[in-house]
Amino acid sequence: MSSAEINKNEVDIVIGALNADLTQFLTSWRPFFSGFHLIVVKDPELKEELNIPEGFDVDVYSKTDMEKVVGASNATMFSGYSCRYFGYLISKKKYIVSIDDDCVPAKDPKGFLVDAVTQHVINLENPATPLFFNTLYDPYCEGADFVRGYPFSLRSGVPCAASCGLWLNLADLDAPTQALKTEQRNTSYVDAVMTVPAKAMLPISGINIAFNRELVGPALVPALRLAGEGKVRWETLEDVWCGMCLKHISDHLGYGVKTGLPYVWRNERGDAVESLRKKWEGMKLMEKSVPFFESLKLPETALKVEDCVIELAKAVKEQLGSDDPAFTQAADAMVKWIQLWNSVNSSARS
Amino acid sequence: MSSAEINKNEVDIVIGALNADLTQFLTSWRPFFSGFHLIVVKDPELKEELNIPEGFDVDVYSKTDMEKVVGASNATMFSGYSCRYFGYLISKKKYIVSIDDDCVPAKDPKGFLVDAVTQHVINLENPATPLFFNTLYDPYCEGADFVRGYPFSLRSGVPCAASCGLWLNLADLDAPTQALKTEQRNTSYVDAVMTVPAKAMLPISGINIAFNRELVGPALVPALRLAGEGKVRWETLEDVWCGMCLKHISDHLGYGVKTGLPYVWRNERGDAVESLRKKWEGMKLMEKSVPFFESLKLPETALKVEDCVIELAKAVKEQLGSDDPAFTQAADAMVKWIQLWNSVNSSARS
Repeated sequence: MSSAEINKNEVDIVIGALNADLTQFLTSWRPFFSGFHLIVVKDPELKEELNIPEGFDVDVYSKTDMEKVVGASNATMFSGYSCRYFGYLISKKKYIVSIDDDCVPAKDPKGFLVDAVTQHVINLENPATPLFFNTLYDPYCEGADFVRGYPFSLRSGVPCAASCGLWLNLADLDAPTQALKTEQRNTSYVDAVMTVPAKAMLPISGINIAFNRELVGPALVPALRLAGEGKVRWETLEDVWCGMCLKHISDHLGYGVKTGLPYVWRNERGDAVESLRKKWEGMKLMEKSVPFFESLKLPETALKVEDCVIELAKAVKEQLGSDDPAFTQAADAMVKWIQLWNSVNSSARS
Repeated sequence: MSSAEINKNEVDIVIGALNADLTQFLTSWRPFFSGFHLIVVKDPELKEELNIPEGFDVDVYSKTDMEKVVGASNATMFSGYSCRYFGYLISKKKYIVSIDDDCVPAKDPKGFLVDAVTQHVINLENPATPLFFNTLYDPYCEGADFVRGYPFSLRSGVPCAASCGLWLNLADLDAPTQALKTEQRNTSYVDAVMTVPAKAMLPISGINIAFNRELVGPALVPALRLAGEGKVRWETLEDVWCGMCLKHISDHLGYGVKTGLPYVWRNERGDAVESLRKKWEGMKLMEKSVPFFESLKLPETALKVEDCVIELAKAVKEQLGSDDPAFTQAADAMVKWIQLWNSVNSSARS
């Protein structure tokens, strides 16, 4: 499958604008974003006017639009990195591709720019194999196959819910690691896509991600926010938590999550040492989240993604609510999100 | 960690000799096998004398040696590819590295020969991370780390039980795939090592493998043999079954299994189309094995590897025995193997 075979009408590229000047970002992505519909969502805390170069099929959404769609009281859930979730909410497309605005196209080892959009869509269109691990990586790639011993009954795979891409240059580290290893850069280009096995937990990053909105859209929920959450990725936990929910729900519903290609090139943003001065609550919350997700079992009656999110929210409140108010807030946000999703998406249908 | 830092006294390289002339094989591996102790086990069905070039620290074992150690009636369990298990049985070292005799060193993308022995030992000496998936691959590699959101309490990892290497040129496919895709060659060098998550099943291949004999030695058991099993890998299931047992026992005991680097270069051996004429039972047996391993739960009282193998054999007999006589034979072979292991290894200790 090549970029020419992708149905561009099925894809929305959602960009959360945390920086006002998107010129360099969009110009660098022009060869790959061209012909796709872009949804740019402006961080509601960003005051300046956005600077968007000519020649893109783009709709921009600001705080005013958010307030119109979800009401002024709900618009706060879309601040900072979470602004992109507003794009997920209002998109009408099958696939979403979302990339942080401090990333530009990476180069593969041969020196060619990586078409991250095409690679994400290929990942989503091909089946995933979460029920048995294939040591030869993605068996649906050209020139690849299932390894000896792989059960034939599992070779048709399952639908792919999400595609998690990776990062060259600045890897996606947490605040303490980033501050301790300010000089460390990721130079390792691993030429592989793989399905993360069912029941395995992973921290999904929102920096470079794509998903099948029709399959799992409501599972991508802006819910868990750290009190000191800033404008740099290493300080956030919103996408990691969302990813834990997404993976668990995908497992429950029989979908797969892939990781690996495509890479993007991440540029510096923010002062890592500055982050070290802040207390990083993320560490504590993750320690509590792991045993929770490990023992979590969604009821078999939860057949729709929306039901799964509601059930998950209920379990979060019951089991984690007393540990930290951030979890109670997350549970409430998840319920609210499903209400919004249903309201926005049902009114769109009618 | 470099090859210079490896304690060569802790490693046995075990080679099952299915071909009499090991000249090309050993000569190609000389730069990396040099200084290590080699255990060459001759397939008891191989009649000709072995041809082994000078300059290796090597002990050769033949059918006569097998009969001396395990008795004439038990020696049959070491025929064909299974001969190498005799080497696992009598080794006294911490680590075993084992490579099929139709493989030579691969080249990495920069054109350097891959030192498979060193890479395997590095994999085994560094911890594994089966309890949470790290999207940045092996976090203990130079220049790598744990990704944002990875729980800090899990960053010390667990002991690594086994390291499964991969194959360039002829990938490790099953008989039907190999026969259908005679022209297909694996050219994809994926520069990564990763831990296969706990509870995920995978078909471990014996072509290019290493393990910590002190941790899991008895779990590598020659047990399941196909009636028509030949002298080509694509017709065998012995290592795949052994790998399913090894992975399950490693999960149960809290150890990790890694896959990825090192690659070896596999040369052709045998006629794939010829294999297609035979009935390939492997397919049927794998379909039955998967739900078995999926639902298998070893008792918490099984704390030693030997206990785990015995419990596993019991479950195989009870749950799969009526499906196919191959499973009953496998269960019996597993019990017999533990008896042999205890007898050989306790007499060595005394």
